[in-house]
Amino acid sequence: VSVLEVPPGSLYGKENLPYGVYRRPPGGEPRIGVRVHEAVLDLALALDDASFAVPTLNPFLAASPQRWAEVRVALQSLFGGPVDDRALVPLCEVELLLPFAVGDYVDFYCSEQHARAVGQMFRPGQPPLMPNWHHLPVGYHGRSGTVVVSGTEVVRPMGQRRGADDDHPDFGPTQRLDIECEVGFVVGPGSVLGSRIGTEEFNEHVFGLVLVNDWSARDIQSWEYVPLGPHLGKSFATTIGPWVVPMAALEAARVPTPTQGDKLPYLAMDEPWGLDLELEVAWNGQQVSRPPYRAIHWSPAQMLAHLTVNGAATRTGDLFASGTVSGDEPGTQGAFIELTRNGEQPIRVNGEDRSFLEDGDEVAITGSAVCAGGGRLGLGECRGRIAPARP
Amino acid sequence: VSVLEVPPGSLYGKENLPYGVYRRPPGGEPRIGVRVHEAVLDLALALDDASFAVPTLNPFLAASPQRWAEVRVALQSLFGGPVDDRALVPLCEVELLLPFAVGDYVDFYCSEQHARAVGQMFRPGQPPLMPNWHHLPVGYHGRSGTVVVSGTEVVRPMGQRRGADDDHPDFGPTQRLDIECEVGFVVGPGSVLGSRIGTEEFNEHVFGLVLVNDWSARDIQSWEYVPLGPHLGKSFATTIGPWVVPMAALEAARVPTPTQGDKLPYLAMDEPWGLDLELEVAWNGQQVSRPPYRAIHWSPAQMLAHLTVNGAATRTGDLFASGTVSGDEPGTQGAFIELTRNGEQPIRVNGEDRSFLEDGDEVAITGSAVCAGGGRLGLGECRGRIAPARP
Repeated sequence: VSVLEVPPGSLYGKENLPYGVYRRPPGGEPRIGVRVHEAVLDLALALDDASFAVPTLNPFLAASPQRWAEVRVALQSLFGGPVDDRALVPLCEVELLLPFAVGDYVDFYCSEQHARAVGQMFRPGQPPLMPNWHHLPVGYHGRSGTVVVSGTEVVRPMGQRRGADDDHPDFGPTQRLDIECEVGFVVGPGSVLGSRIGTEEFNEHVFGLVLVNDWSARDIQSWEYVPLGPHLGKSFATTIGPWVVPMAALEAARVPTPTQGDKLPYLAMDEPWGLDLELEVAWNGQQVSRPPYRAIHWSPAQMLAHLTVNGAATRTGDLFASGTVSGDEPGTQGAFIELTRNGEQPIRVNGEDRSFLEDGDEVAITGSAVCAGGGRLGLGECRGRIAPARP
Repeated sequence: VSVLEVPPGSLYGKENLPYGVYRRPPGGEPRIGVRVHEAVLDLALALDDASFAVPTLNPFLAASPQRWAEVRVALQSLFGGPVDDRALVPLCEVELLLPFAVGDYVDFYCSEQHARAVGQMFRPGQPPLMPNWHHLPVGYHGRSGTVVVSGTEVVRPMGQRRGADDDHPDFGPTQRLDIECEVGFVVGPGSVLGSRIGTEEFNEHVFGLVLVNDWSARDIQSWEYVPLGPHLGKSFATTIGPWVVPMAALEAARVPTPTQGDKLPYLAMDEPWGLDLELEVAWNGQQVSRPPYRAIHWSPAQMLAHLTVNGAATRTGDLFASGTVSGDEPGTQGAFIELTRNGEQPIRVNGEDRSFLEDGDEVAITGSAVCAGGGRLGLGECRGRIAPARP
């Protein structure tokens, strides 16, 4: 028996309590845990509640905000008291698994900085922002079956590319493999077909937040994406962090969104809120960018209201992500295509000039939420290494 | 005890045997059945196999082509022999349910006639076909959580629309609610991340075919779709037929695809095959179109090869659809936007001029496969009625 406590300043104390699914190799069964400093607290053992001895968060996500709140209070009350040693497993002894079964995955495009930068590159000579951009959170469906957990290797995709001066496409491994540093939101109780979720109902429907890396093959994407949007340039893999940080914890990190113009009433909010999340992108261990989530134009509540305004149903485990997070300052862009200006201004990574990802490269996205009262909450890590293409 | 037999010329005899999930209201549990003429043959009872007393086809889809073939032979051997009366339930006494849990839903755009017609309307003055169209099956991910079974009401979606002469969008019920008459393919055993499915491996991975109506709100779609593709203009509902027709049955309906130009090797096939399916669209009971599936440019085997060429995993229950099926002749287009030339040339429906769907309208897609040796296989029905918007 130990005392459940964390050192001062830990990013994973009682104010955070992100949920994940872990396994103790070899042979351990997947179970739900929350991260407490550098350990996983097994929820079934800590709370004597067998409903957490399951391999996915989905049943808990589906329960209700009231249940989430009760469990949060119960967990917080354990701090400072005794805890069974078997319930506290060092992080270094566990394997972290995909925390929930993903329903539909929608990826938005809510960073104005990113949308402008990519628009300039993909549609030179045209206005970088489409006329709809300031009126609605533009988004599309990604492939939920290829959402993988941090640590999963990413096989370099093969595909069609066409050079600007070529008549015909050729086929081969992508030469412009990129990242998109994002934040995703995880739906709890779903909503029925034909109904809508208003901006004020966000808390009833969204449980928490994960880090997201929406890997992108820019050459494949730029050839395929008209007129129906990105497909194979994205669908080969999307990595999410293993920890789902409760929105309840993140209320302390709410900040106003950037100023929004006139909006249709279904997107209106008295005070549109964003989140003060400081993200970091490390390329082979070297920090190359610090994207500021607070620059994101639309509130997550507006994203969900838009997603369902046509009556689309939601399901437990649905994931909707912000789109690439990019700031205005140099070194704050969430994609290499922006950081390197379409590959034309390589950046130095461990002494080498680099534009896009090479085989063996590893990218890790980390971040923390900056709380109003001081203090930070860790968001975990979203990591992936590039494996060679399989021709 | 009766004899299992069908009248001569039945579209649902021993050569067809489409699979579905049915329930006998009130109170009956969902179970798997195959359609035999105007009845459902309960598989668990008919084959004395409890694995079919389940509410979804997914376990059977996941099994293997060998298992599919064994069950098909076993079912066919029952014809002409005695069958327990309890195993044969009249269609009029059952409710047909969503036959499988949908994994990812991809919608292609494989009718050249449709792509050209829509391109002219959405991008006037520009080439109707994008440069990529003849090089790859263009497609995108739809919302799998809003795939519903035939008979489910479709609530008219609300959304943003912007008129050609307006600066700002307004908000309201779609004024241009349309259909897309399509055919979808259902994945059986999935494939692992990082691997590809070659065109010659189609039979190992695809179990069968369903009718699809990809309802579309054209005003919402045309405002939102740049640059990331269709989203809310489609995500409110996609209806599929209740019967999954085995590809094994449809081998008799294979025909060559239209002539294809040069292709990259991963899309090459000795003899690209399509299917001779004659589809019919009825608007409030009146037949308004007869889309010919044999006009579709890409083989379903090419669609799947493309979908996975980047290493994207597939899962049991993944659904990929052809896109709107449209022919060259008047009255063979699979969407009202084409049939009515963007609404400018209304068609007569039960004595009224109609361009798009009004509340209370019902659309039914039916069809049959034309087999090489003569004979036809029924594809079931994909039906939906429009309910008023919920403001």
